[in-house]
Amino acid sequence: MGELVFVGLGLGAGDVSIRAIDLLRGCERVFAEFYTSMMIDAPIADLEERIGCRIELLRRRDVEESDTVIDAARRSKIAFLTAGDPMAATTHVEMRLRAEREGVGTAIVHGISIFSACASALGLQPYKFGRTVTLPIPEKGHFPRSPYDHMLDNFQRGLHTLILLDIREEEGRYMTCAEGIEWLLEAERKYEGGLITEDRLLCGAARVGAPTQKLVAGYPSDIMTEEMGPPLHTLVLPGRLHFMEAEALVSFAEAPKSIIPISD
Amino acid sequence: MGELVFVGLGLGAGDVSIRAIDLLRGCERVFAEFYTSMMIDAPIADLEERIGCRIELLRRRDVEESDTVIDAARRSKIAFLTAGDPMAATTHVEMRLRAEREGVGTAIVHGISIFSACASALGLQPYKFGRTVTLPIPEKGHFPRSPYDHMLDNFQRGLHTLILLDIREEEGRYMTCAEGIEWLLEAERKYEGGLITEDRLLCGAARVGAPTQKLVAGYPSDIMTEEMGPPLHTLVLPGRLHFMEAEALVSFAEAPKSIIPISD
Repeated sequence: MGELVFVGLGLGAGDVSIRAIDLLRGCERVFAEFYTSMMIDAPIADLEERIGCRIELLRRRDVEESDTVIDAARRSKIAFLTAGDPMAATTHVEMRLRAEREGVGTAIVHGISIFSACASALGLQPYKFGRTVTLPIPEKGHFPRSPYDHMLDNFQRGLHTLILLDIREEEGRYMTCAEGIEWLLEAERKYEGGLITEDRLLCGAARVGAPTQKLVAGYPSDIMTEEMGPPLHTLVLPGRLHFMEAEALVSFAEAPKSIIPISD
Repeated sequence: MGELVFVGLGLGAGDVSIRAIDLLRGCERVFAEFYTSMMIDAPIADLEERIGCRIELLRRRDVEESDTVIDAARRSKIAFLTAGDPMAATTHVEMRLRAEREGVGTAIVHGISIFSACASALGLQPYKFGRTVTLPIPEKGHFPRSPYDHMLDNFQRGLHTLILLDIREEEGRYMTCAEGIEWLLEAERKYEGGLITEDRLLCGAARVGAPTQKLVAGYPSDIMTEEMGPPLHTLVLPGRLHFMEAEALVSFAEAPKSIIPISD
């Protein structure tokens, strides 16, 4: 009997868990996709060395339009590797459901995810995040309003927003913090909710969890001009800051000291 | 020069990362606390074997009222281990800020967190979660309203709510899914928002990510009577379900088939 195990590798090469390594040793074939997200500072060869087995890299069409992985899993134990946590992308949930419908058993090995690590790196309280948004790389004639509305809704309730940035792996394009800020400013010009003002505090995070991680908190113009380095980048729009969260942003993300409320 | 590294071990013993193991090998002393959260199926001795070093277990007062860890980190490299991701608990952010203020450098090694793994295990989309709530173990004369209000607020927006359950490690009490449901029913009787009705779908998750994991989705009475086994337990109140999310709850958490909308 075969089995398909979805394995999350976390954000960078060192994030892989003991459970994942143990499991991969017992797999017949190991597939991976890095188009929904990518690993920080981890070329495939390094990753193969880390996890001790050869990786068959899949492109989008291999995952979405063919049954390569599920077919292989009918006969033997197969791992399907992804960055982050393996079920964050809808396409993986879809693949898991398809496998189960076809009688192939599945399992998950969780990985460190940007959904929790980004808050943690910045010292923001994870329970105070509202819904997450993703900013799309702008295309002519297509500028969806919903990310702006969701951020505004979170903000009005005092909640933080994790702002994921678009990835087009096929084109080698990974949206940067600066491009994200440009998107936000454009959205403000269009929808005028008073959300992205010049004195609105935002956070930029690059390569979260990696030794080369860079965090910055400041006003839109600060983040636009900051050199954040290679991908992946993420933004956060903080809502109402607890005193300790403000202190954390000053200590760990170079936020201006003026964001800390004056205490008695 | 010393350093204090906050290391997240994830949810169970196998979740520890390669990065954490590498780091722990270079530490002078390794402290841990398991009162803000605990590791699944991982007695201290097993954990010590997994990570290859002796662990000095700290109680709440050692962490909150003394400077044992920070003092040790002045002179040498020290690790402070926690379950999950190391900065999810406010007390760890507070400790990190205190260390930095006293001139002790700090770093984080992220861990797999219930904040992302629970959604992932159930097949719910992580970006559709609103703010997280924690239900307190009920005490006479103390029944805070805010968790109910936050859940209602999320639900009205179509968002899912991750419902963490109280832990009182000192008393060996870990709130169960059944106790959580009781809390919710009591809150409904008090605040009458029409949120926790007898046909409201909820999810219970026990020991997420561990080989003994148990997931269940159903109505309050179903989850109340389900034997979920040892801690930790978590609840989720789903908001508007996407077709695929409904399918996932049926496949992976034994939800009634009737939750799947009839497609054409």
